[in-house]
Amino acid sequence: MAAVFSVQIAWGDCDEQGIVYYPNYFYWMDSAFQALLRKAGLNLRIIREKFGAIGIPLVEAKARFLASATHEDALAIDAAVSHWGRTSFRVEYRAFRERELVFEGLEARVWAVRTSENAVAPAPIPAGFRDALSAAGAAR
Amino acid sequence: MAAVFSVQIAWGDCDEQGIVYYPNYFYWMDSAFQALLRKAGLNLRIIREKFGAIGIPLVEAKARFLASATHEDALAIDAAVSHWGRTSFRVEYRAFRERELVFEGLEARVWAVRTSENAVAPAPIPAGFRDALSAAGAAR
Amino acid sequence: MAAVFSVQIAWGDCDEQGIVYYPNYFYWMDSAFQALLRKAGLNLRIIREKFGAIGIPLVEAKARFLASATHEDALAIDAAVSHWGRTSFRVEYRAFRERELVFEGLEARVWAVRTSENAVAPAPIPAGFRDALSAAGAAR
Amino acid sequence: MAAVFSVQIAWGDCDEQGIVYYPNYFYWMDSAFQALLRKAGLNLRIIREKFGAIGIPLVEAKARFLASATHEDALAIDAAVSHWGRTSFRVEYRAFRERELVFEGLEARVWAVRTSENAVAPAPIPAGFRDALSAAGAAR
Repeated sequence: MAAVFSVQIAWGDCDEQGIVYYPNYFYWMDSAFQALLRKAGLNLRIIREKFGAIGIPLVEAKARFLASATHEDALAIDAAVSHWGRTSFRVEYRAFRERELVFEGLEARVWAVRTSENAVAPAPIPAGFRDALSAAGAAR
Repeated sequence: MAAVFSVQIAWGDCDEQGIVYYPNYFYWMDSAFQALLRKAGLNLRIIREKFGAIGIPLVEAKARFLASATHEDALAIDAAVSHWGRTSFRVEYRAFRERELVFEGLEARVWAVRTSENAVAPAPIPAGFRDALSAAGAAR
Repeated sequence: MAAVFSVQIAWGDCDEQGIVYYPNYFYWMDSAFQALLRKAGLNLRIIREKFGAIGIPLVEAKARFLASATHEDALAIDAAVSHWGRTSFRVEYRAFRERELVFEGLEARVWAVRTSENAVAPAPIPAGFRDALSAAGAAR
Repeated sequence: MAAVFSVQIAWGDCDEQGIVYYPNYFYWMDSAFQALLRKAGLNLRIIREKFGAIGIPLVEAKARFLASATHEDALAIDAAVSHWGRTSFRVEYRAFRERELVFEGLEARVWAVRTSENAVAPAPIPAGFRDALSAAGAAR
């Protein structure tokens, strides 16, 4: 039920040891997040224009790496919301090479709006956004 | 007289052969272009807001690679305008590791504006932009 | 008849203007080159181990940009050898968004070996390599 | 007493919202780790050749983001070992824009060797490595 982003690891994604240079894992995690938004009929432009947020800034990101990966390997990364707070939410990621778990990760994001004083502040997540994203990738 | 951008090559900039993954050379070329703009008191925001362009899109980029480079190597990349056309200009780059030329490159960019019909079209380069950029990095 | 590499442009591939940050185009060109090698049953490890080269270093890369592209856009990049020299060869690339040509590029590479004096020097391209790569993506 | 890696954020490091595309923060964290190794007279080649490890693979990485950053901003990222285990260690990072904390992060790495059965396994961290890295960036 999660959104899935697939990638084949490129030559340039690997370092001198022939394994993935790790910041690329976060690049693919973010790509999986974009796939989750897309599956929900959303993207960051829509979030700003339709829902009035100035963005959904990341406040935390982490990953655990269980196996190394190299160029030519194909990864399927699933993304699903794992927690809804009032003004923040978490998305969990799992990346598989066939049936082997290569890494798992988490992002925490905040719903941010511009206040009347022109500051940026957290605000309650609109139900329409939450429902759309939950439907796209909530349960596992 | 050119603008200079300095970089120390990172572990993650290299591939399995232990040499720079080449798209990074273009990333550093663009960073040298930003350094040239900065030296001229400009950046892409100012170009849009003060000079009314919608941007200065790249229409061509190329590089010749004369030596390989690896992590820890320090490169100094100079940038200077090599040609002014009516609506376009070229910037040349040379990257040195101490006195050795590692690569040289060229970018061609166009001065682009939004027309009354809401299309994007080339337009004459404003003298103020040309003079500022020439002063920052024109002669060698 | 060319090898084709497909990519959907990610949020993180674009700059503040919402268009592709151009070094990424070269990253995808290289990915198309890897796809061409793969279609020929080759990769850089095989080139070293089976054919005895120390690599096929890039000596030149260039691209012309005909249209801008943004996140969510799907590009199909074809790669085909356009010229065989004795010790070097060229690969040409064309990137399409549906039927629109977004950019076209060229890479020149050299067949490099380690000499008995432990230097790196160009050497004649083995017929087996040339035939395999030509079969994978030579004609258009 | 920590090692410090300094970076000026480039145009291409930012996304359509004009703020840093977050995987770049991990790229700079890793660059700070390389700076820490360098300050200790080490790098990944030396670790393999002198100390006999096959590598020090990352098993976990995380970061908390406290402020956004944009191109032209200068970040100073300090790196210091925060924990030594028998076969693993942690490195902590803090990134400042002048006196403002922009993000803080953590990496956990394992000392990995090749066993007589040709498998990869954790092994005790050599005292020479630990002492060198601690001297380069342990206390704050």
